[in-house]
Amino acid sequence: MRNHIKLGVFGFGCVGQGLYDVLNRTHGIKAEIVKICVKNRNKTRRLPEDVFTYDKDELLNNPDINVIVELIDDADAAFEIVSTALRNRKAVVTANKKMIAEHFEELFQLQQEYGVPLLYEGACCASIPIIRNLEEYYDNDLLNSVEGIFNGSTNYILTKIFRENLNFATALKEAQEKGFAESDPRLDVEGFDPKFKLSIVLTHAFGIFIKPKDIFHYGIQNLSEFDIRYAREKGYKIKLVASCRKIEDKIYAAVLPKFVRPDDKLYNVDLEYNGITIESIFSEDQFFAGKGAGSYPTGSAVLSDISALTYGYKYEYKKYFQENSLALDNNFAIDVFVRYKQGEILPAEDFITVKEKYSSAKDSYLIGSISLASLAKADWLRRDDVNIILLPEAIPQEIQVLEQIGVLV
Amino acid sequence: MRNHIKLGVFGFGCVGQGLYDVLNRTHGIKAEIVKICVKNRNKTRRLPEDVFTYDKDELLNNPDINVIVELIDDADAAFEIVSTALRNRKAVVTANKKMIAEHFEELFQLQQEYGVPLLYEGACCASIPIIRNLEEYYDNDLLNSVEGIFNGSTNYILTKIFRENLNFATALKEAQEKGFAESDPRLDVEGFDPKFKLSIVLTHAFGIFIKPKDIFHYGIQNLSEFDIRYAREKGYKIKLVASCRKIEDKIYAAVLPKFVRPDDKLYNVDLEYNGITIESIFSEDQFFAGKGAGSYPTGSAVLSDISALTYGYKYEYKKYFQENSLALDNNFAIDVFVRYKQGEILPAEDFITVKEKYSSAKDSYLIGSISLASLAKADWLRRDDVNIILLPEAIPQEIQVLEQIGVLV
Repeated sequence: MRNHIKLGVFGFGCVGQGLYDVLNRTHGIKAEIVKICVKNRNKTRRLPEDVFTYDKDELLNNPDINVIVELIDDADAAFEIVSTALRNRKAVVTANKKMIAEHFEELFQLQQEYGVPLLYEGACCASIPIIRNLEEYYDNDLLNSVEGIFNGSTNYILTKIFRENLNFATALKEAQEKGFAESDPRLDVEGFDPKFKLSIVLTHAFGIFIKPKDIFHYGIQNLSEFDIRYAREKGYKIKLVASCRKIEDKIYAAVLPKFVRPDDKLYNVDLEYNGITIESIFSEDQFFAGKGAGSYPTGSAVLSDISALTYGYKYEYKKYFQENSLALDNNFAIDVFVRYKQGEILPAEDFITVKEKYSSAKDSYLIGSISLASLAKADWLRRDDVNIILLPEAIPQEIQVLEQIGVLV
Repeated sequence: MRNHIKLGVFGFGCVGQGLYDVLNRTHGIKAEIVKICVKNRNKTRRLPEDVFTYDKDELLNNPDINVIVELIDDADAAFEIVSTALRNRKAVVTANKKMIAEHFEELFQLQQEYGVPLLYEGACCASIPIIRNLEEYYDNDLLNSVEGIFNGSTNYILTKIFRENLNFATALKEAQEKGFAESDPRLDVEGFDPKFKLSIVLTHAFGIFIKPKDIFHYGIQNLSEFDIRYAREKGYKIKLVASCRKIEDKIYAAVLPKFVRPDDKLYNVDLEYNGITIESIFSEDQFFAGKGAGSYPTGSAVLSDISALTYGYKYEYKKYFQENSLALDNNFAIDVFVRYKQGEILPAEDFITVKEKYSSAKDSYLIGSISLASLAKADWLRRDDVNIILLPEAIPQEIQVLEQIGVLV
């Protein structure tokens, strides 16, 4: 027996319009849009006026609407809408990663308390069904790591830089014109957006709720000609990679630019595509790729959630209820390339080891091992003449282990 | 509320032992093996003797057992076991693609009639959760095609041939030693195994039940030095590719060797890995890859099904209940390379167009367009001095359309 879905939709931007088109061309799904709530009264829209309202209560308090789809930009307003909807016992579908990541535990509690589901596949890598797969398929498995390109906009920019020698600003403008970028592009470029997604992935992969502010991130905002040339000479590409990994009962998690080799599965993930590698003990490495941005791929993921609701689907948060002892830890050493413009601005004591050092009048770099904890509090990292990039196949290592085997000096 | 699972397992070969290991190292899943039924009384096994029985009724009629896991080789015996188990209202997990493909509609009916689930993720591309994703995630989407490397054993052989210049027999022996091959290697090499999987995929992708015998298949048994050299010179690899595609309300489906270019996602799917490309109108092309053979990847998929049963999961066969008008059709033209040893053995009238022709004292080939229907009845195709390979990015075309636009001569 399938539930008939009557939708109240918040927002009619890029994703909202994508959903509308997708829904209109799909016959299998029993869902209709009752009302769309929008903010701006002066915008011309392609649907008749009576489909729209400016009053959120017309959706939230409407007994005819059983599912709220939240597709607005403002994360605070979105949280207000979503939490009210759950309290009113309406199921909710959203693609708002910032909102979920920042209020995740509370949203989880609301689902438990009011017994209604909140689905958000579209919030993570758009068209790739990563949440559903982590939740359903890898629940029994001994998952080691989830790593990938989680942001379509920066991947588009990096691709255009590497393929077409476009400069950063032009590539960003193209990404914005194609509807791949957040309305505040810093969320993409500085690595916030993939971090929000990583925080969501952490819950479904390892059963822990981690606030975005506790995850180290670094974006591609300081990428220079020198970095790009260095990558090219080595045969690498640079990708912005979100990664989480279980090592004993500690969890490593970070977003960092990374050099990737041609034999890395992420190497061929270009343009607005996202790619995710999942490592588990028995199924070993698995790989998912698909469009990670754009109105249709995201709209399609939202529709898939709506369809799942017609079958009574909800996330079980299986890992959360199974695992208890895992905790995020920044006490991991990672191997990085650090490029800087001037003399000796990097305090040697921040590094565990320094393996290579290069300097010239214009650009200098070092290659060495540093802990996430040191990176998180390094002032020099906030300078705009500095950039860091993970080395290819850098596997984070527990500092304790490094000490035991005598790598530390 | 999770169901506690008590397993009766048939078979303790490669996959059975994989499952046993995986189950023993996983703490999240509430399942225990009550009894394992095996055939051979004289084999030494690594578990205490009282775990085993030789009497299938000890499992099938055991009220303590609520889930039967069928992992034996013999498809006929497997069907007997699985159908009896379903009639006894026990849920069943199996990885036996031949058995499912050959009895699919009957197994579907038994599930409906007795209200118990049959899960078989391990039967399709081992560790890749393709059935679950087609069933759950793409149910609402306008799916166009599913195409991929569905057989780990032949992909291992082809990789070894291309990478290490191994000859066919040695590569096959290696695949067998590693546990990637079916006990009857012809099932892999001649393309039966990927065809069984394709027939299962067809049901979950497009909602139609198609007997394996109605799907055209051709394997890699006749691959020659000449073919390999030809591929290398063009920068191609050869992969055995299973493909199904919706064109209007007709379904194209076939298994054929294919030249793949470096920019094809399947190009980098090597060794025992499988890779699947899914095209849909809104999420566009998505890609899944993972190990497609071996005891642990398959055991892991079987365990994932068992875990899903603890949450009451069953396949809904959503497409079957949604779509009605789709039907398999062989009236499609495909572009192929046909290599033959001697003179004029290919009847010109079988081909729609011939675009290239090459002949030498030893090897000849032509490149042309031919319908699946002609291929299916071509006697020359059964000669062992003939080989056919799909051209890269060959998209099947309806013959009718070809006639309209005047391609036919």
